[in-house]
Amino acid sequence: MRPTSFRHPFKLYTQLKALPSSPLKPIAPLIRNMSSQSLPPVLKKPVKLACIQLASGPDKAANLKHAASQVRQAASNGSNIIILPECFNSPYGCQFFPDYAETLSLPSSVPPTEEQSPSYHALSSMAADNKIYLIGGSIPELCPNSKKYFNTSLTFGPDGKLLGTHRKVHLFDIDIPGKITFKESDVLSPGNKVTLIDLPEYGTIAVAICYDVRFPELATIAARKGAFALIYPGAFNLTTGALHWKLLAQSRAVDNQIYVAMCSPARDMSASYNAWGHSMIVDPMAKVLVEAEETEAIIETELEGGVIAETRKNIPLSTQRRFDVYPDVSEGTVQFKEPSR
Amino acid sequence: MRPTSFRHPFKLYTQLKALPSSPLKPIAPLIRNMSSQSLPPVLKKPVKLACIQLASGPDKAANLKHAASQVRQAASNGSNIIILPECFNSPYGCQFFPDYAETLSLPSSVPPTEEQSPSYHALSSMAADNKIYLIGGSIPELCPNSKKYFNTSLTFGPDGKLLGTHRKVHLFDIDIPGKITFKESDVLSPGNKVTLIDLPEYGTIAVAICYDVRFPELATIAARKGAFALIYPGAFNLTTGALHWKLLAQSRAVDNQIYVAMCSPARDMSASYNAWGHSMIVDPMAKVLVEAEETEAIIETELEGGVIAETRKNIPLSTQRRFDVYPDVSEGTVQFKEPSR
Repeated sequence: MRPTSFRHPFKLYTQLKALPSSPLKPIAPLIRNMSSQSLPPVLKKPVKLACIQLASGPDKAANLKHAASQVRQAASNGSNIIILPECFNSPYGCQFFPDYAETLSLPSSVPPTEEQSPSYHALSSMAADNKIYLIGGSIPELCPNSKKYFNTSLTFGPDGKLLGTHRKVHLFDIDIPGKITFKESDVLSPGNKVTLIDLPEYGTIAVAICYDVRFPELATIAARKGAFALIYPGAFNLTTGALHWKLLAQSRAVDNQIYVAMCSPARDMSASYNAWGHSMIVDPMAKVLVEAEETEAIIETELEGGVIAETRKNIPLSTQRRFDVYPDVSEGTVQFKEPSR
Repeated sequence: MRPTSFRHPFKLYTQLKALPSSPLKPIAPLIRNMSSQSLPPVLKKPVKLACIQLASGPDKAANLKHAASQVRQAASNGSNIIILPECFNSPYGCQFFPDYAETLSLPSSVPPTEEQSPSYHALSSMAADNKIYLIGGSIPELCPNSKKYFNTSLTFGPDGKLLGTHRKVHLFDIDIPGKITFKESDVLSPGNKVTLIDLPEYGTIAVAICYDVRFPELATIAARKGAFALIYPGAFNLTTGALHWKLLAQSRAVDNQIYVAMCSPARDMSASYNAWGHSMIVDPMAKVLVEAEETEAIIETELEGGVIAETRKNIPLSTQRRFDVYPDVSEGTVQFKEPSR
């Protein structure tokens, strides 16, 4: 059972310094929890967030132009953080990745040329022209040295500068016979990090892509490291979308008491892959605040730091976790940068 | 990115033995995943599982007698694993725990006397009389030496012998102003372990109680250690029940691809605490197989190992996790036994 001095961590800490071999272990989490209560709010000020459920087709230039128009619309509605869907500049499918892939030269700090990556420059301009933070969904990336392809998300700030990148860590390899079979790893290679991106005006977001949402560690680590929102550009399909899209969004929210945004392409029944749609923004109590249907749409809602704080005060999971019984996954070895290998 | 020999773990392992300082780390998970694929199914044979959504009142003897009658009914319906709700022998509330508490002398292997714990003996008889596995919800426990109270679950086998115990690890301390305020820790002390219980005929279950379901680590560890079902006797209320009861059951199922059973008391609007009801059994794809309403009910369904295996084959999360990017919480230091302190 808990030591009787559980509510006096500093006294307990003193005791334990004198007992280095003690089996008691709740000290570190206690002290961390204590100190986190005096930290500033994870979301510094309210912000309007938009998911653009974009209808894309095979013409990349047209897709980029259309995305720019929709981003302009969302910005004019007052959204300051805007999200595009997975593979927003191309159809989704292993047969399309190589043709649409662009060279980003990551993790270099030198931007690619316009010729290497028209999408990079289009996204940068959308962010700068509208003075908004843009989580640019994802695009197929080719790394020319390794000849590997990735599914990569680029996030830009209001000055048009690149703030962070995420390569999809968990590739979409599933086989539900008669319903959906897909093997991204036939073409793509995986990323190798948890992605936290600082938006200076607001705080930290986590970005991951689609199938990554099935792996709760990314969300847990992000929330415990102070993110205010989990952003998932993603293209679920008619099988897994109906089964799990909303459930996974709400699961990540309820366990981490954090905002969750899932941004899908619009459904196109003439395409080879039919996206689920239903982009949504979920609040820290797991309530769906806004949800799109299947067709192209912009969904928007205001995020408030007070809602996160109130949820965490009312149901104080973050101080109730029992890291003396099980480990804290966020305190183990986590890759926050792409290893150079 | 992944080493190119990713699909040849033994070759990779050989390489790494020659490179002990290599930053590559996917070896252990790969080898574990490889070996787990040749393990026997986590559920050895199909079994019918029942949740008894029991209506209890202030008369403990009457509650025990009524529970016995309902267990007999579920057994006669063919259920071989039967679950009772949290605090099935008493009303739920801090003011009731001391009056209803029984001495179990845990973790002693000597059973308490009939006088010390009538509920222990009643549960043992229910299991033996019907030759079923009984997860006996929970009862208030008093530890006479420490004078501490616990919320404790007892599981018995078909021979009436105690197979395992779980003391609620995360106490229900929440405060949603104007809706629900409750502080179990005013009276109760917490348990200190993850509880896995072997049911020899079927395999391993995990038992945790109510608020424990909000802490995904217990479920994750149990699933990765080979459990076929997560069993939560629990008494959510009209606020958190409406918000999160079903979501949490489905969340634990979808992330761990495992059966989940949540067993609530029936709702009693004349009691001081109004339980949510809605006992449910969820399958490894997160589909709700059966769900009670608010009133007393027995819900039953067949669990099949093939469903777990098929889910894990179709959406192969267990081989796709990236323990080179984030740690595996089940491989860290986990308390599976109550520490003697």
